[in-house]
Amino acid sequence: MNRRIVLASRPTAAPGPENFRLETVPVPQPGPGEVLIRNHWLSLDPYMRGRMSTSKSYADPHPLDAVMLGGTVGVVEASRHDGFAVGDTVLAFGGWQEYALVGGDGLRMVHRIDPGLAPMQRYLGALGMPGMTAWYGLHRIIEPKSGETVVVSAASGAVGMVVGQLAKAAGCRVVGVAGGPDKCAFVTQELGFDACLDHKALTDPRDFDAALAAAAPAGVDGCFENVGGMVFEGTLRRMNAFGRVAVCGMIAGYNGEPVPLKDPTVILRSRLKVQGFIISENPADMMEAFRELAGLHGAGRLRYRETVADGLEAAPEAFFGLLKGHNFGKQLVRLVPGA
Amino acid sequence: MNRRIVLASRPTAAPGPENFRLETVPVPQPGPGEVLIRNHWLSLDPYMRGRMSTSKSYADPHPLDAVMLGGTVGVVEASRHDGFAVGDTVLAFGGWQEYALVGGDGLRMVHRIDPGLAPMQRYLGALGMPGMTAWYGLHRIIEPKSGETVVVSAASGAVGMVVGQLAKAAGCRVVGVAGGPDKCAFVTQELGFDACLDHKALTDPRDFDAALAAAAPAGVDGCFENVGGMVFEGTLRRMNAFGRVAVCGMIAGYNGEPVPLKDPTVILRSRLKVQGFIISENPADMMEAFRELAGLHGAGRLRYRETVADGLEAAPEAFFGLLKGHNFGKQLVRLVPGA
Repeated sequence: MNRRIVLASRPTAAPGPENFRLETVPVPQPGPGEVLIRNHWLSLDPYMRGRMSTSKSYADPHPLDAVMLGGTVGVVEASRHDGFAVGDTVLAFGGWQEYALVGGDGLRMVHRIDPGLAPMQRYLGALGMPGMTAWYGLHRIIEPKSGETVVVSAASGAVGMVVGQLAKAAGCRVVGVAGGPDKCAFVTQELGFDACLDHKALTDPRDFDAALAAAAPAGVDGCFENVGGMVFEGTLRRMNAFGRVAVCGMIAGYNGEPVPLKDPTVILRSRLKVQGFIISENPADMMEAFRELAGLHGAGRLRYRETVADGLEAAPEAFFGLLKGHNFGKQLVRLVPGA
Repeated sequence: MNRRIVLASRPTAAPGPENFRLETVPVPQPGPGEVLIRNHWLSLDPYMRGRMSTSKSYADPHPLDAVMLGGTVGVVEASRHDGFAVGDTVLAFGGWQEYALVGGDGLRMVHRIDPGLAPMQRYLGALGMPGMTAWYGLHRIIEPKSGETVVVSAASGAVGMVVGQLAKAAGCRVVGVAGGPDKCAFVTQELGFDACLDHKALTDPRDFDAALAAAAPAGVDGCFENVGGMVFEGTLRRMNAFGRVAVCGMIAGYNGEPVPLKDPTVILRSRLKVQGFIISENPADMMEAFRELAGLHGAGRLRYRETVADGLEAAPEAFFGLLKGHNFGKQLVRLVPGA
């Protein structure tokens, strides 16, 4: 049987269990041109929150009663398509379910991956969408020069971890922002960031400003933004003239009203470039990103941390925790015991 | 005698007469290497408000008891510098006064201009800083393609007028935003914009959204922002994916607290590039801008409107009016009767 989780209703604020429904249905069998994948790992990502609502986004809202979308890695169980053989390890958009049947246009999102290069779930993290997102925002928008200072919010998250290590590799001073002393210790000691500010201990903007001034004595040239809100505002205040801001996420506002930017005049005062982006719209760059990330990984210079929830039924709670910052590193769901 | 206006005190909200002081002093005479200019025209510009305060800006605050800064055009009255002769018409930063004595480094800001090409005060407007500001924001940040839609706020202002005409010359659909039916009629009928929204009649964001949707049926690709606040927010909501925003001014917040950007997530949702700039930091582009502007002007394709206040003593009131949008077109002060 195939267990799957569908979107049962749309949240108005923070999502809850009532928004999801676990269903058990027979495992489908592939018809001509189709492939059946057993999903081993499911990726949980903040963008999923946006799809649950009908509010305007860069993508259409997720349909009700359909299997929740999501990136997966797994193994081909049955194939009636020449491009895929039983036993192939594949990256796919298999969704929140144990088996995915894919055919037609959907196969454009299915890619064979090399499980010898790295554990397959790494293709959902440092070697996958989050890693390529980090690469694109840093190298195509921030374009850091050696010696510049880059600030990364959600620094211990799936994207932030990679941003900081790439910026270090580019010769930058790197300041992370994360929630709590454990995450900050990881960011500096394990990932090699030069400093990390604990936003949970710096809730007064004056304290944040003072801590950032100490951590970034020459000002901030690049900001990789994943969160929005107070940390974003404080980072903008510290930016040097001609600073670049890659807007990757604004998770602080995903569960309700957007968090305002109190002083947009900083964009003019400091002649900033503030640019939003979505990695999947830049396929040519994704290939270049993957090559650099795989090279760093192979050289042992891409440290990474994962939080794993076990079993499909654990996905909703893990997702709620992700939106609250309870995860530590990339949030995954293991769908096959012992995978 | 030389009459001059100095900064007497710093405003905390809207500036008032108490912030300025009119002084009468002897006309200075040039020493070796110095030039005495009689200022014929003084430019009034929103950026001056920022200099009156000590709050962080891209420039140092204006010193108290010093002559208010400002761009001027005038004629050399006496010269002890080989580069300037009596009778030369010059563009300078002569300030709020009838005569300016300039030497040393200050002469880098003094440029001879050709009064045969256009009335000299035009070098404070369409052929000067405002015109070049328009050119830079449009061509270097928005980079419009033929057929795209560009929105310009403060459309009947010194910069906005030029932005729209340049965008029309580039083959764009151009929508202005201005305050009141007279300005809107001028913008469409005289300047040739495709549409103009009266923000005084569209104070409800839903009304503004509906009007902009009608005026920009294919969405907005470029935004040249001079104002900030409700109009800016509404324009951002209407922007297409990969839209470009040139942030030239945010006059709505100059007299008090900055006006927040309520929904910065639009930058991510629509993958916008939002970039602040200051024309004087881009001297190489200024030359190219001037050439195009002079060419359009010579061909009669650069329409322009000026509001003239007569006499130095009229400068403060004209400046207060500028900050409230009372001017119509470029705000000038005529310092020489009949100039």
